[in-house]
Amino acid sequence: MDLNADVGESFGRWTLGDDDTLLTVVTSANVACGFHAGDPPTVRRSCVTAAVHGVAIGAQVAYRDLAGFGRRFVDMEPGDLRDDVLYQLGALEAFARSAGGRVTYVKPHGALYHATRDDAGQAQAVVEAAAEFDPSLAVLGLPGSQLLAAAADAGLRGVTEAFADRRYTADGGLVPRSRPDAVITDPDAVAEQVTRMVTAGEVVADDGTVVPLRPESICVHGDSPGAVDLARRVRRALVDAGFPPTRFA
Amino acid sequence: MDLNADVGESFGRWTLGDDDTLLTVVTSANVACGFHAGDPPTVRRSCVTAAVHGVAIGAQVAYRDLAGFGRRFVDMEPGDLRDDVLYQLGALEAFARSAGGRVTYVKPHGALYHATRDDAGQAQAVVEAAAEFDPSLAVLGLPGSQLLAAAADAGLRGVTEAFADRRYTADGGLVPRSRPDAVITDPDAVAEQVTRMVTAGEVVADDGTVVPLRPESICVHGDSPGAVDLARRVRRALVDAGFPPTRFA
Amino acid sequence: MDLNADVGESFGRWTLGDDDTLLTVVTSANVACGFHAGDPPTVRRSCVTAAVHGVAIGAQVAYRDLAGFGRRFVDMEPGDLRDDVLYQLGALEAFARSAGGRVTYVKPHGALYHATRDDAGQAQAVVEAAAEFDPSLAVLGLPGSQLLAAAADAGLRGVTEAFADRRYTADGGLVPRSRPDAVITDPDAVAEQVTRMVTAGEVVADDGTVVPLRPESICVHGDSPGAVDLARRVRRALVDAGFPPTRFA
Amino acid sequence: MDLNADVGESFGRWTLGDDDTLLTVVTSANVACGFHAGDPPTVRRSCVTAAVHGVAIGAQVAYRDLAGFGRRFVDMEPGDLRDDVLYQLGALEAFARSAGGRVTYVKPHGALYHATRDDAGQAQAVVEAAAEFDPSLAVLGLPGSQLLAAAADAGLRGVTEAFADRRYTADGGLVPRSRPDAVITDPDAVAEQVTRMVTAGEVVADDGTVVPLRPESICVHGDSPGAVDLARRVRRALVDAGFPPTRFA
Repeated sequence: MDLNADVGESFGRWTLGDDDTLLTVVTSANVACGFHAGDPPTVRRSCVTAAVHGVAIGAQVAYRDLAGFGRRFVDMEPGDLRDDVLYQLGALEAFARSAGGRVTYVKPHGALYHATRDDAGQAQAVVEAAAEFDPSLAVLGLPGSQLLAAAADAGLRGVTEAFADRRYTADGGLVPRSRPDAVITDPDAVAEQVTRMVTAGEVVADDGTVVPLRPESICVHGDSPGAVDLARRVRRALVDAGFPPTRFA
Repeated sequence: MDLNADVGESFGRWTLGDDDTLLTVVTSANVACGFHAGDPPTVRRSCVTAAVHGVAIGAQVAYRDLAGFGRRFVDMEPGDLRDDVLYQLGALEAFARSAGGRVTYVKPHGALYHATRDDAGQAQAVVEAAAEFDPSLAVLGLPGSQLLAAAADAGLRGVTEAFADRRYTADGGLVPRSRPDAVITDPDAVAEQVTRMVTAGEVVADDGTVVPLRPESICVHGDSPGAVDLARRVRRALVDAGFPPTRFA
Repeated sequence: MDLNADVGESFGRWTLGDDDTLLTVVTSANVACGFHAGDPPTVRRSCVTAAVHGVAIGAQVAYRDLAGFGRRFVDMEPGDLRDDVLYQLGALEAFARSAGGRVTYVKPHGALYHATRDDAGQAQAVVEAAAEFDPSLAVLGLPGSQLLAAAADAGLRGVTEAFADRRYTADGGLVPRSRPDAVITDPDAVAEQVTRMVTAGEVVADDGTVVPLRPESICVHGDSPGAVDLARRVRRALVDAGFPPTRFA
Repeated sequence: MDLNADVGESFGRWTLGDDDTLLTVVTSANVACGFHAGDPPTVRRSCVTAAVHGVAIGAQVAYRDLAGFGRRFVDMEPGDLRDDVLYQLGALEAFARSAGGRVTYVKPHGALYHATRDDAGQAQAVVEAAAEFDPSLAVLGLPGSQLLAAAADAGLRGVTEAFADRRYTADGGLVPRSRPDAVITDPDAVAEQVTRMVTAGEVVADDGTVVPLRPESICVHGDSPGAVDLARRVRRALVDAGFPPTRFA
């Protein structure tokens, strides 16, 4: 089971997350590419540290929105979005190569992640950029998303992910961050949710519905207080459940 | 003799230059990479058009300064500058590859171009990024500049350029744009300056001094009214002088 | 009848529109405030020129989106949008005051203009900022829009506008710019549409429906080739129809 | 004796400093205006909190440089700089007014602060914007700086400041941040430096020289760990020395 997290989300003077430690815990790093976070020196540091720990480097592509941290939907033309994604992929690749690695997957960030669940045009734009850049790239996304459908159509490997600490809705979506119960903060509850995901292939939604789920990667967050401890807890849960973290790519 | 020009300096709604025509005239295109100009769709268009016409694609790297168009010196730490340059190289390469080409050289833009004439730290930063990215990259710069010295030290090919329509100072520098006589606007005078550069290896400075010069590439500008006509005139002057434009890389 | 146009939409090296001439034709200037266009020196120039010609200065507030020129909907939280609008109002006011005038109205730009037609949250955010800044500000918008409803609720003067050269839909909306017939380019047709708007209080929609309309201001565009000539034509049509342009505020 | 600190230096998702507490300690708040830090919601929060605590609101104007946090010198034309400063002043004023206060002084940030010590052109640009905006604005700066000289020439009140925790050079300048001893971290040493400044009117420079100094305001920093504790310590030292903090304006 792969374990992925967002890293490289600092920008200039502003630091976010304890990437150095987080990168000793996860197996795949979604590296911010500069559009929602991640100035070039931060991108470099992320790639170097990921490479040192043998962590896969993924492109955490986003809308061009530093002020909103990429969390606001931007109604872009698909062609423009494709180009913005390709730009970010290329920029990240330069640092990945320099660190002795390469970009092996793409995962949209924030509002783009959510948009590519249902918006076929934006999903295809992301996938087109990925395919154009490197047809061997994997695409990380929600099961049932337009993103993974577009990846499949384009012959790209789709990798389904599940969220360790996010609450699910009955239709397999995520409870929006605007709701107070969007994030599970109790470490035991998080570990239990992850264990059930990987052993039983299911998650209990906010209304009690049991939703089937077959993730190939588990996502943990790194930017909240105690995030790294929680990531460690998830890692241990995976090991205990017989699914020790290994990169999917 | 190579003939280079800046292209891809539009941004979003704002258009600058007649790139489509200019790219039928020059042999090397300094493509803006997004930091001083050049949003991703513009980068794509520049690379595609350059590839169609067999024009070499160079990275016109710059300070992160859209509002100042990269024409204001920014006193960056060399390490940060190196990363900003690497970021731009990677981004451009993605589009160059997609268009069937690749980035073959780097040329700093605006204030960074001027800074790397004398500032060894910034010159080395640019060259380090280039060497890190691809040791086969050439570096386009002023003869005698720190930039070309750093390129030589790093084992990168340095390519000296001269400016068709810029006035020179007695020490081989350019008359600053703040002076009214910075740019030669008379097409005949431009053609004459270029012809003398390539045939006699010299240029007449603003004070009448004859300055020796052995350019491997002639730079024309594309963003002023009549720029493309002037570029055509320079091209003809090169042909007439027995130095028909061919790419250096 | 007021005659308004967007001005100040240049940015740094990039020039858009012939503001100096346009400001001799219109009576109200929607000045870009820096978020979609308009760097500070451009804002100053716009305010000074508007003041010289006795043209009213309005705040053309927009999403923070230089790359998209404010033409892409951004799904902002109303509180954040309110603050972005207030920021723009304050910035513009500094230049308006310096030029001897003041900001007298607000008009959302691009995607924000369209969003505030139907999105009550974003409409209220814009109006809240305006009311907070200066309760004597007018709000320029589409008749029937949430924007004007929110302005009325907040006790702000609403001013309805109509577009000289945009095609209307049967429900009084504008044909989206993505459609080829979005803009009327024939000057005679534009003059005829304007004349009918102000004399008969109606416009013929794209499907032939006659839509009632009582504009207090007519909007002309300044950023296309021939825009200023068209604006002059509209001005003449207004004069001929007995509604010579005078500022509403 | 006034006690000033930088606040409002968060941006979007990124938080910097504990402003809520710091604003209970200082008497003057240098509020970031969006160019090096401070998105509009942050500007609002800073102004509201400052107003609640009766803290003076100053404009911490800066170069347009989010990635460099305004710490990199940008060689701007004075006219452009003046306009960038006026823009920031206006934007901040809108929030200050909304919070029931107003901007009472201006203090350049980071590299602009350092540039305006010796660069008369940039110093005058800042002062021109301030005078244009409101001739009753005070200007906070280093004693002997071009900034304060320009303020005096323009008839603006100059207010000299000294730094509680910065090491001085023998000529009254600050040890550059690039040096390891730039910042004094020992709270006792900081308190002692402040006490000596206000009681004896002098500071001991890095080489042991005793430099005369007559500050009207003491600057503390808020963005480092333990910053607020240090600010409290400085406040106590001022009280103990018989100079209880009161705003200069």
